[in-house]
Amino acid sequence: MFIDRLIEEIKNKKSPIVVGLDPRFEQIPQSIKNACFSEHGKTLKAVAEAILEFNKGIIDGVSDIVPAVKPQIAFYEQYGLEGLHAYIETCRYACKKGLLVIGDVKRGDIGTTSQAYSNAHLGSVDIEGISYETFAVDAITVNPYLGDDCLKEFVTDIQKRGKGMFVLVKTSNPTSGQLQDLVADGKRIYEVVAEMVQNWSQKTLGKYGYGSVGAVVGATYPKESKMLREKMPNAYFLVPGYGAQGARAEDIVDCFDENGLGALINSSRGIIFAYRQSEKGYTEENFSEAARNEALRMKDEINQALEKKGSLYY
Amino acid sequence: MFIDRLIEEIKNKKSPIVVGLDPRFEQIPQSIKNACFSEHGKTLKAVAEAILEFNKGIIDGVSDIVPAVKPQIAFYEQYGLEGLHAYIETCRYACKKGLLVIGDVKRGDIGTTSQAYSNAHLGSVDIEGISYETFAVDAITVNPYLGDDCLKEFVTDIQKRGKGMFVLVKTSNPTSGQLQDLVADGKRIYEVVAEMVQNWSQKTLGKYGYGSVGAVVGATYPKESKMLREKMPNAYFLVPGYGAQGARAEDIVDCFDENGLGALINSSRGIIFAYRQSEKGYTEENFSEAARNEALRMKDEINQALEKKGSLYY
Repeated sequence: MFIDRLIEEIKNKKSPIVVGLDPRFEQIPQSIKNACFSEHGKTLKAVAEAILEFNKGIIDGVSDIVPAVKPQIAFYEQYGLEGLHAYIETCRYACKKGLLVIGDVKRGDIGTTSQAYSNAHLGSVDIEGISYETFAVDAITVNPYLGDDCLKEFVTDIQKRGKGMFVLVKTSNPTSGQLQDLVADGKRIYEVVAEMVQNWSQKTLGKYGYGSVGAVVGATYPKESKMLREKMPNAYFLVPGYGAQGARAEDIVDCFDENGLGALINSSRGIIFAYRQSEKGYTEENFSEAARNEALRMKDEINQALEKKGSLYY
Repeated sequence: MFIDRLIEEIKNKKSPIVVGLDPRFEQIPQSIKNACFSEHGKTLKAVAEAILEFNKGIIDGVSDIVPAVKPQIAFYEQYGLEGLHAYIETCRYACKKGLLVIGDVKRGDIGTTSQAYSNAHLGSVDIEGISYETFAVDAITVNPYLGDDCLKEFVTDIQKRGKGMFVLVKTSNPTSGQLQDLVADGKRIYEVVAEMVQNWSQKTLGKYGYGSVGAVVGATYPKESKMLREKMPNAYFLVPGYGAQGARAEDIVDCFDENGLGALINSSRGIIFAYRQSEKGYTEENFSEAARNEALRMKDEINQALEKKGSLYY
């Protein structure tokens, strides 16, 4: 079951961190890019190879100190079939290295179409009796705008195959409030979504009291996340916005429960492109080590904040 | 400009119809599937070839009588890279046949990530000075749950490249009301989205008074669509739900303005799998002709309803 595996890895590694693999091509070390360009020219193939090479370096650097990675599919999709091939290979490599993989795909559609997305990203397709997995990962992110008949299609695969999903509740971006913060019948829209998520969490409960249906709750809105922690006692939080988007350890402690569980904090740019912070003595050549150091620093920051709050999980 | 090309094609063909290319593999004619299986075995490649072959037959059958097709990417994505290759080839074939292509992708994310999706589906990526298009089509559907800083990333490509998008406002599925119908400050959530869309429509206006940013408004909610027509005078409607989902011509007439413009009505299963209606004398062999006949029938139904209302567009 996804949620139990996640919690066990968090406890084993003492690290409630997920590394976002958002390979903005411009920021990948020039030496990796040049090697791929000289082999394949300035082509989509070269970009895909460079992305994969870079991701492998990051994964090698962090695989023993974090429980999961979260590739953002948009950064692969823009490079077409070659880019998506790099997405698949990245997910495979991370899995081989013992990491859980959360595909940040934010899919969601009407019922039968959501089923097709679930086949793609959690389950499999059947070709007259033969089953194929295509983009299948351990868990994905899902958009709730179409309501429950969208979400429930994913829940079938979650229950049947031990997968997970994180539903967008309160996102980390500046305009997230335009719809999500509106108040209807005394409840904010994100609270209504939170109730839907809590309901699905209860139906996918694992042995630690959390369900395999969780919630995306932005670190950039600490007051809201404290309230949402109470609203969704059984939903694990996937928390974007730490680091590059501005949130710090004190902003995310209330995403956790009193036992230090309940939240998985994401950092993307702050870890994977740490090598660009030359003031720390990092260079292109040691991008993997730079990522490792920043992941360790983030882990310490968060664990200290949790300790201070009296809710450490190990 | 997308919206002007769309309106001109609607007028030329006297047909406000878009054919949804949602190739549910189980429903593709067995003869096509068998031919592909015998060449490629029961593989993803065989499925992709069968989907493409089927789509070409449908496009051949309808290309002179409808202005546009709308492939639903989920039905391709579930078959992995091979499936997405069929998506790309389907879009290319439709374009070559003079059709506008609306990619039903329902993407949407935080700002910089939406930019990557826009690169993928409307624009292009730049590899050190060389530009590549990957999944680029004429217009796409977009999910608004993250607010304006998601939408605006797509608008840049829309303005710069003459593309379009349809933002989900009121979707056609049974649970669409769970979030979309909630009332905040006297306005339903879909009205709030409608105001955002109307704002972007005005910023992308073409010569017929409509903008290249339009709205998805389900045919299954006729009362709501009448009100939304007034709320968004400059937004073209992409209207799913006709036929297989239950809506009929009288349900969609109020999506149109007094000149018979303003709406593009989608039918997917009702047209592409018409051949399965054996009571009409259709067979597998004439699936293309069956689709053509049903598209013509739908066109007549809609035009008659518009004529009755006194708002025919030609």
